Amino acid sequence: MEAKKIITLTTDFGLQDPYVSEMKAVILTICPNAKIIDITHNVSKFNIRMGAFIIASASQYFPKGTVHVAVVDPGVGSKRRPILIETQKSFFIGPDNGLLVLAAQNQGIQRIFEITNPNLMLKKVSSTFHGRDIFAPAAAHLINGVKPTNFGPQINELEKASFVEARKTGNLLIGEVLHIDDFGNIITNIDTKDLPINSYGKMIHVESPVSKLTLRLCKSYSESKIGDLLILIGSHDFIEISANQDNAANKLKIQPGQKIILKIQ
Amino acid sequence: MEAKKIITLTTDFGLQDPYVSEMKAVILTICPNAKIIDITHNVSKFNIRMGAFIIASASQYFPKGTVHVAVVDPGVGSKRRPILIETQKSFFIGPDNGLLVLAAQNQGIQRIFEITNPNLMLKKVSSTFHGRDIFAPAAAHLINGVKPTNFGPQINELEKASFVEARKTGNLLIGEVLHIDDFGNIITNIDTKDLPINSYGKMIHVESPVSKLTLRLCKSYSESKIGDLLILIGSHDFIEISANQDNAANKLKIQPGQKIILKIQ
Amino acid sequence: MEAKKIITLTTDFGLQDPYVSEMKAVILTICPNAKIIDITHNVSKFNIRMGAFIIASASQYFPKGTVHVAVVDPGVGSKRRPILIETQKSFFIGPDNGLLVLAAQNQGIQRIFEITNPNLMLKKVSSTFHGRDIFAPAAAHLINGVKPTNFGPQINELEKASFVEARKTGNLLIGEVLHIDDFGNIITNIDTKDLPINSYGKMIHVESPVSKLTLRLCKSYSESKIGDLLILIGSHDFIEISANQDNAANKLKIQPGQKIILKIQ
Repeated sequence: MEAKKIITLTTDFGLQDPYVSEMKAVILTICPNAKIIDITHNVSKFNIRMGAFIIASASQYFPKGTVHVAVVDPGVGSKRRPILIETQKSFFIGPDNGLLVLAAQNQGIQRIFEITNPNLMLKKVSSTFHGRDIFAPAAAHLINGVKPTNFGPQINELEKASFVEARKTGNLLIGEVLHIDDFGNIITNIDTKDLPINSYGKMIHVESPVSKLTLRLCKSYSESKIGDLLILIGSHDFIEISANQDNAANKLKIQPGQKIILKIQ
Repeated sequence: MEAKKIITLTTDFGLQDPYVSEMKAVILTICPNAKIIDITHNVSKFNIRMGAFIIASASQYFPKGTVHVAVVDPGVGSKRRPILIETQKSFFIGPDNGLLVLAAQNQGIQRIFEITNPNLMLKKVSSTFHGRDIFAPAAAHLINGVKPTNFGPQINELEKASFVEARKTGNLLIGEVLHIDDFGNIITNIDTKDLPINSYGKMIHVESPVSKLTLRLCKSYSESKIGDLLILIGSHDFIEISANQDNAANKLKIQPGQKIILKIQ
Repeated sequence: MEAKKIITLTTDFGLQDPYVSEMKAVILTICPNAKIIDITHNVSKFNIRMGAFIIASASQYFPKGTVHVAVVDPGVGSKRRPILIETQKSFFIGPDNGLLVLAAQNQGIQRIFEITNPNLMLKKVSSTFHGRDIFAPAAAHLINGVKPTNFGPQINELEKASFVEARKTGNLLIGEVLHIDDFGNIITNIDTKDLPINSYGKMIHVESPVSKLTLRLCKSYSESKIGDLLILIGSHDFIEISANQDNAANKLKIQPGQKIILKIQ
């Protein structure tokens, strides 16, 4: 597959410091007509699970050939490998710490390379900022037409992410809180496909470590009163617990990673 | 009028989640050479008034033919209509909930369309994220040359915004707090035109539900001491209450929407 | 030197208001194919030191001919001059208040101009928003090929920044906290070059107004345990005090501007 001109960036760097712009500066120095799109730079610091969810969500909407760079990298400077993953649709570049697995698997992994070629890095590589010194230049060179095989040796194994997969047991759906978004929507890892057909309008019993309650499965926020909790099929086809014009996570005190059990009445 | 290549985005999505980048991904998939400019994604959640002020302020500086997409949309998934407004200068795309009215009226509304054509939406339209599934594709198709008439039926009425208009009664100017900016400047909806000529340097009595005080109308912050309150003609020609290198809204505990009465001494 | 198509923006405007997008709108109106890159808009309000550090850090990575616009401008509307600095590598545009000095000196200052030509400003110049009305148009015209000499008279002196320079006294390195980044890394103004050769692994005594402690100079975070403090060569070659996956500034209660003395054991 050929890399297109779009590079996305996902990091936990925040938007206060010069770091994100230095990655962009490096990219534009190597490839002046790259189109750089921020996915987010506000992943919670060192939170690989949150980064993985966000990249997996966003990457499916980008055109074929997009190069996705992601840096949530508590192990920077250690022996964790810098990697380049080629999928059937895109490229993913970042640390081999589980961050890229979910997004890459969704698209069908074709080949994985360890990035070792110093000619495709900045001349001076710091031990604290591989985003700028290794990952950004790799993305820009890839867009310029450098072949994936030039970046380093092909490898077969990726570090796994430690996410629980949702499962179905009788009429129970058992998963966990994948992410709480900025609206306070509680996004679970339970897929819509696991709901019985014609579930809309049904009552669902929801159990978490901090609460037990029964909520209606709605099609949109407006089916409930303002402030009321409800269950929705989220915009990424995961089951969400939401509140109409209110913050469901604050109301329920639920945290990412907590277990969620759904029982359809 | 013909759409140019610039699309602006204004939302209350925040910058933490994948949502904004998914709108950009959809736009770039349909129109790879779109130039996407963020106005802001930090409108307070569901705050249509704040969104309306920000779009109205920013949109007047963009070139002719710009397509402005705005999504502050508490009624997403309900019967509120998705609309496209053509003005003498730009296009506005978003929910018909008052968000776009102020900006569009400033530019002279020409035609309004309800967006109903499913061929110009994503194939699968969620009931919670029309920004990605309806509004982003509409903007990209418009830029690609699709005629406004293709999006759906022309309509004549818009939902009104519930903003108080400032008024003048004798020597009183009566308005409200339109917006408090990130510096703490208190931006009112009272227009500079309503001030008597040669008001600079005069003392103005300011009354709000939480304070009464008398301040000088200055030309710039530097006419007052650091920390002192003053009145300024803001950069959008509205009257502002500010503090030199300090946060006027924190000092006065004033909130958006509160009534403001000015009496020129 | 010729201006390229890249314009960077660094401000203390925050990301909530229409201000940043109005600067971009003005730029794109004058130069439709400008490539605008945000360095940051989250400089602490009126904090010239922080802005200066960030521009100096980021600007070195951008290609030759980049135009850097920076606006941290507590004196807007006063007599402080709007300036354009031409260096051996870039252009810097902003207020003459010390903000641009560090970055420009790093690149070798060639000529300085006061921006006075009203034809290269917006027609109506407000007294509170020169970023939009003077600096953004100046950058766009420069990119369009307008010569630096057209902007106004050449000047010889810049307002100095009031930064302490780090110094070496015997085996003491004496400097100050330049910046605390979003991870809580404490970035000093002490340059790596001032460390004795082969210092890695050595213990360094660190004294600040609020703490005295002895830390190891490491190559990367991963040489310490999670939560432990360490000393690092930062990604800009300044000495940093950091904590592995933790916030060093919170742990030590250190503030920007505080004095730091290092003694190598």
